[in-house]
Amino acid sequence: MDNWILKQAALSPQRIAVNDGQTKLTFSQLVGQLETLAGKLDRIGALNGNRVAIMTRNSLQGYLMALAALGSGQTIVWLNWRLADAEIKRQLQDSRPTLCLVDDQLWRPAFDSEFVKFSDVMGITVSKKPLRSEFDPEAVASIMYTSGTTGAPKGVMQTFGNHLASALASSLNLGVTPKDEWLCAVPIFHISGFSIMMRGLIYGMTVRLVAHFDPQTVDRILTHEPVSTISVVPYMLKKLLDLLEQQGNRYNANFRCMLLGGGPIDRQTLTRCQRAEIPVVQSYGMTETCSQIVALNYSDADSRIGSVGKPLFLTQIKLADDSGEILIKTPALTPGYLNRPDALADKKTADGWYRTGDIGHFDQDGFLFVDGRIDDMIISGGENVFPDEIESVYLARPDIDEIAVVGADDPEWGQTPVAFVVSDQPLNSQDLIEYGRQRLAHYKVPHRFIRITQLPMNAGGKVQDLS
Amino acid sequence: MDNWILKQAALSPQRIAVNDGQTKLTFSQLVGQLETLAGKLDRIGALNGNRVAIMTRNSLQGYLMALAALGSGQTIVWLNWRLADAEIKRQLQDSRPTLCLVDDQLWRPAFDSEFVKFSDVMGITVSKKPLRSEFDPEAVASIMYTSGTTGAPKGVMQTFGNHLASALASSLNLGVTPKDEWLCAVPIFHISGFSIMMRGLIYGMTVRLVAHFDPQTVDRILTHEPVSTISVVPYMLKKLLDLLEQQGNRYNANFRCMLLGGGPIDRQTLTRCQRAEIPVVQSYGMTETCSQIVALNYSDADSRIGSVGKPLFLTQIKLADDSGEILIKTPALTPGYLNRPDALADKKTADGWYRTGDIGHFDQDGFLFVDGRIDDMIISGGENVFPDEIESVYLARPDIDEIAVVGADDPEWGQTPVAFVVSDQPLNSQDLIEYGRQRLAHYKVPHRFIRITQLPMNAGGKVQDLS
Repeated sequence: MDNWILKQAALSPQRIAVNDGQTKLTFSQLVGQLETLAGKLDRIGALNGNRVAIMTRNSLQGYLMALAALGSGQTIVWLNWRLADAEIKRQLQDSRPTLCLVDDQLWRPAFDSEFVKFSDVMGITVSKKPLRSEFDPEAVASIMYTSGTTGAPKGVMQTFGNHLASALASSLNLGVTPKDEWLCAVPIFHISGFSIMMRGLIYGMTVRLVAHFDPQTVDRILTHEPVSTISVVPYMLKKLLDLLEQQGNRYNANFRCMLLGGGPIDRQTLTRCQRAEIPVVQSYGMTETCSQIVALNYSDADSRIGSVGKPLFLTQIKLADDSGEILIKTPALTPGYLNRPDALADKKTADGWYRTGDIGHFDQDGFLFVDGRIDDMIISGGENVFPDEIESVYLARPDIDEIAVVGADDPEWGQTPVAFVVSDQPLNSQDLIEYGRQRLAHYKVPHRFIRITQLPMNAGGKVQDLS
Repeated sequence: MDNWILKQAALSPQRIAVNDGQTKLTFSQLVGQLETLAGKLDRIGALNGNRVAIMTRNSLQGYLMALAALGSGQTIVWLNWRLADAEIKRQLQDSRPTLCLVDDQLWRPAFDSEFVKFSDVMGITVSKKPLRSEFDPEAVASIMYTSGTTGAPKGVMQTFGNHLASALASSLNLGVTPKDEWLCAVPIFHISGFSIMMRGLIYGMTVRLVAHFDPQTVDRILTHEPVSTISVVPYMLKKLLDLLEQQGNRYNANFRCMLLGGGPIDRQTLTRCQRAEIPVVQSYGMTETCSQIVALNYSDADSRIGSVGKPLFLTQIKLADDSGEILIKTPALTPGYLNRPDALADKKTADGWYRTGDIGHFDQDGFLFVDGRIDDMIISGGENVFPDEIESVYLARPDIDEIAVVGADDPEWGQTPVAFVVSDQPLNSQDLIEYGRQRLAHYKVPHRFIRITQLPMNAGGKVQDLS
């Protein structure tokens, strides 16, 4: 198929492709800028191989670097700038990009000659290089490393076809109009942000790029600019609600939808959304599926608290008979993990369903609820217990800052839940147990509460068990 | 992937799937009706093979018959009820459906035991039969016969994947919202109408079914019901404009777009659209591409009179270097013609571009203009008429030595076929017209027969029009 960037420049040359608040580039101008950048990238040899790594904040320059590489036929290896040197090194050893392009502000002393600062690229004077005329749906557009809770990070390969299927399925659910403009304050090195970039190219839509999530800035943009859509995680939603409630303002007339990833919202937060007139669409997806594959529309939110919704048009979902694990089929599913030809097959059933690793259930009307990770599941006295549920109950207490529930071996019950809590206030175990018993089945209430000063996290923000 | 009908019943059970002005069926109700019908179809053996032919007007019953067959895993062979008995017979001999389901009002004396009236299907009492759970994107959903310029009509196979690609590409251009409702007054046995049915299933959108194009009825619906979109040919557009101008009315607030096929409009008609506030989107497509692959958005119409627009997102177009023939690549392209494994390959270039048989050119901004058929197709009242087909029917008469059919301009139908005949015997116009009506759809029958002593031929042996 046609290179999406060139296609939009042909279809809608005057439409704004990207706007970072200072610079607006039409699709036509975008192509010009990318051709200039492609010439520079070519000069430094970045286009000699098949892959280019990029480490950037949500800056316009990083955005353009990525699209110049992509438009020139390169696979982008997205680097999370929050990772430690050693983690980055492992990802590069695995992906072996020709070069690694780095936002100047993220430069590190450890970076050697395979790393190139954006400013060094920009400093080159050279003639333009045309972009590749076509994108191959089977070709890998991007690689993102997921830090599973066990083992080394794996590079998820996302094809152009995967991104296309994801964007189209999303459009059938959220709708798509020529007036759409999507605010991107989530990182473009994550699928949450990169999928917005891809939708921009596929819909011919303006991406309103925001350097990082500052609630005041985003609130101001949503109020005064014609943004129709924003992707958020629960933390961002709550910060935005705080501001709306303090200020009593309303978002612009073109605002249509807040797409929420990273877990469903509670009744209280939904009520706040309703009061603030924010149509929030909850969703479920993963790096392996190029973002959302399940969504809960706003009109259903009130009656389905805790649900992530229904599988989108192109996605099929069923539950494993034995474990209740969520199994999926979707054209947005990755063709595999880089350099691990067996790793995806290992996560598929004999008849080709992808095992998500999440346990879930459907209600009688076909709404999906995600109960928790299969790896985190505690089996206590034959009952399945999910740490997520317990943690969210305790996090509602103002005296608990953080909590992690894990399973401890128990001679009588097999396992019992034990909680690690972070708090700067006095806590009483019996009081906490009593609190739990009023809100949870008894077998879900942690038998012990252990105070710690900090939760042990891996790079992906997940608690790591000693094992 | 999931059966689209079942998928929409799961996603949007309460949304209206189809409304014929008397009956509204939600997607949930639709499934119930189709399961009932599938039981009946199964009982009469219609589901024993792979194909079911359907001959129907735009009736709700015909709509449901088609979806029941499709949803049960059958390929629909769409029969144009305006064809002559002999034409229908040829198509059935080629497609060999298990049965042919016929709208009672279209029943003909010539129909034998392989034809079954709708009422005979409905009269069966039997339990429901579940629909097939999945649609295979590679499977053939529908077959539509086109009368090519040479030889017998060819059955165009349209896969589920073709229909999906077409609907998604259209949605990226026209937009798609949950409030959309598409009026279908074009025949569902044509791709213009069937593609609306398919969009209904893919978008989860209401199809407002209209039995036939009566301008007053359609005007009233567009004015008083929340229809967002209608597909028309130029003849319909002009009739609707006449009414709007006479009555001074405006369409409903949800009305967004008139999708025009069958040729671009002239300046005068566009001006009338502008005055009547009808956003008209001109388009270009064919049965082989599951409808539109090129569209001219309303905002561009004024400056591009005569253009059909730009290739949609999933479509690539270029012109043959030598002839200027329009060449295309699109995932909506048919995998081939039934029983003619070489016929599609014959229409492709060495590097896989499909040769449309149309001559075209692009202007400097990438807008496509279709200049005409490589062969001399006549478009009469929105129907494609191919001289060769008519000529071969008349050449079967011993009293006609030579014949050439060309299109004559006609204020009402756009064009009508006119025949030049060479004969040394007495000929009677009325007799020739009657002869044609027994063998051809009425619109294919030449309106005039002009006797000449010799046909003017070009070097290639083809009749040359004066131009």
